[in-house]
Parts: sequence; structure tokens; C-alpha cells
Amino acid sequence: MLYEIVVPQSIKMLNNLSRILDKGAEYADAKKFEAEVLWNSRLAPNQFNLIRQVQIACDSAKKGAAYLSGKEAPVNEDNEKTLPELKARIDSTVTWLSTLKASDFQGAEERKISQPRWEGKYLTGYEYALQHVIPNVYFHITTAYSILRHNGVEVGKKDYLGEMPYKK
Amino acid sequence: MLYEIVVPQSIKMLNNLSRILDKGAEYADAKKFEAEVLWNSRLAPNQFNLIRQVQIACDSAKKGAAYLSGKEAPVNEDNEKTLPELKARIDSTVTWLSTLKASDFQGAEERKISQPRWEGKYLTGYEYALQHVIPNVYFHITTAYSILRHNGVEVGKKDYLGEMPYKK
Repeated sequence: MLYEIVVPQSIKMLNNLSRILDKGAEYADAKKFEAEVLWNSRLAPNQFNLIRQVQIACDSAKKGAAYLSGKEAPVNEDNEKTLPELKARIDSTVTWLSTLKASDFQGAEERKISQPRWEGKYLTGYEYALQHVIPNVYFHITTAYSILRHNGVEVGKKDYLGEMPYKK
Repeated sequence: MLYEIVVPQSIKMLNNLSRILDKGAEYADAKKFEAEVLWNSRLAPNQFNLIRQVQIACDSAKKGAAYLSGKEAPVNEDNEKTLPELKARIDSTVTWLSTLKASDFQGAEERKISQPRWEGKYLTGYEYALQHVIPNVYFHITTAYSILRHNGVEVGKKDYLGEMPYKK
């Protein structure tokens, strides 16, 4: 169950984020400014810039899936600076997430999850997924989106949500 | 299962949002400006202001739970203007969500969900919860948070995530 609510939806949202970044680059191009201005923008002086929001969105999904499944996640150097680098970071995260199977998450709900800064305390996998991983993934994707929106990029809710599997 | 991933976590996040709004009011008080400036702020001229973000955060959770459970949700007039009114809106949403039981969501995963603007198309309850309700709840709570953060209110990730049920 935790596989279902964490992995496929994180993949979808990260792919949406990648397309949102494209819109940022197109906007910079149309307005004739360096896209790096957008990647280095932030909503508050003491909040992370867009590059870091993208990195943490990726890591929230990656680390969440790694802790829950017990699988080792690839290490990233966090040195992205350009659109191709940011998109490659997202792509590599999606590629790794795509290697995970529902069966890797057997027992994940009861698994005791602890992170170094939690000083020995733990959450169950169920609590960790619902109260930590998922809110963090959405937080950083929404914040990345908002940084672009705040700077005039024409992105809308549909870009954030992505395609819906509507049926007739 | 959909009850678990939609209702308790929406209640938690909406309560976090209510406390985040308090921090906004405290900041306005300390800096000696009218808190209404914050409630009417937005990140982009053509994006909703904070009042509307709070209303839609509430409605995303409320309508989501209503569609999934088949229960009728209370109607809101969307006329909030002040902190007490915004907090009352959140409280009433939380109170209604708290009346729902896991058993109300039996069969919700396969339920065909349609909204007027979907022109007769539908999503399964499972798709609707994961790809629509949850991303929307987080989107509007994060955006409300970001509007305050952008205006200097000292809110941090812990305010957004809320208390974690850490165990030793």
C-alpha cells in the first residue's frame, strides 16, 4: 500500500515538475533574461532557492522510498546549476524510483524508520510515509512552482497536477 | 485505506495551517501593521490571495472526503476576512472531517467520481484521492504558508509538517 501512495505519484509529480521547469526556461527565453536568474530565485531571503527546492523534492521522494523499502538510493552531489542538470537530476530520481516494485515495500508500514537528526527516535513506516515523505514532496514541488509563478512564469494548476486518467 | 490517507492527515495539516495563520497575526502585531494585509497578499497578481488559499485548502479536503464517502459536506459562503473567521472556517472543516469514519469509505477506491467541470468524465476514487485531492490539499496549504513566508513571517518546515509521533 505504501508503494502505491509514495512511488507512482512521486514519479508523476516529479515529471510534472520537470515540465514546469521547461516553462520557466521558455519564459526566460521569451523575455530575454538568463534562466539562471529563475533557478537562483527564492520567495524569502532565508528560504532555499529553486535549485535547492528541486533537489529536495527529488531527495524527499528518493530517501522516503529508500527508507521504506530498505533499498539503497543513489547518492547525488547537489551541484546542479542549469536546466539540463536540474532535469537530469529529476530524471535520474524517476529512473531509480521506477526500479522499485510494490513487493519491495512489504512490511514497510510497520518498519521502524529513523533518521540521523531524530536522535534515536523513530516513526513507523506508515507514519513516516503519510506525515513526512508525502507532505515534503508536495511542499518542495509546490514551492518550486510558486517561485516560478511569482516571477511571472505562466504555470497553472494543471501543470502542477499533471494529466488526469479521466474515463468516459 | 483512502480514509486513512485522506482524512486524518488533512485534519492534521489544516490544524497546522491554523497555527501558521496565528504566527502571521503575531507578526503583524509585532510589526504594527494590519493583519488583513497578509490575508489579502498573494505571490502573483493572477494567483489567489491567502484568504482564498485557506478556503480552497479546506474545500479540497472537504469535497474530497465528501465525494469519496458519499456524505454530504456543509456549504461555506467563502466570506472570511479576518483571522477569527479564517480559523473558524478551518475549525468547521476539521469538525466535519472528524465526523467521518473509516467505514464511510468502504468501496471508495472503486467509486466513480465526477465533478461538474469534468463534463461527464470520471476518475476512480483511488485515482481521485491520490492524484487530485491530496496534491490539492498540500498545494494550497503550502501556498498559504509561502505567502506568509514571503512577507517575512517566521514560519518554518516544522510549522508546516506539525508534530511527529516519534517513539523511542
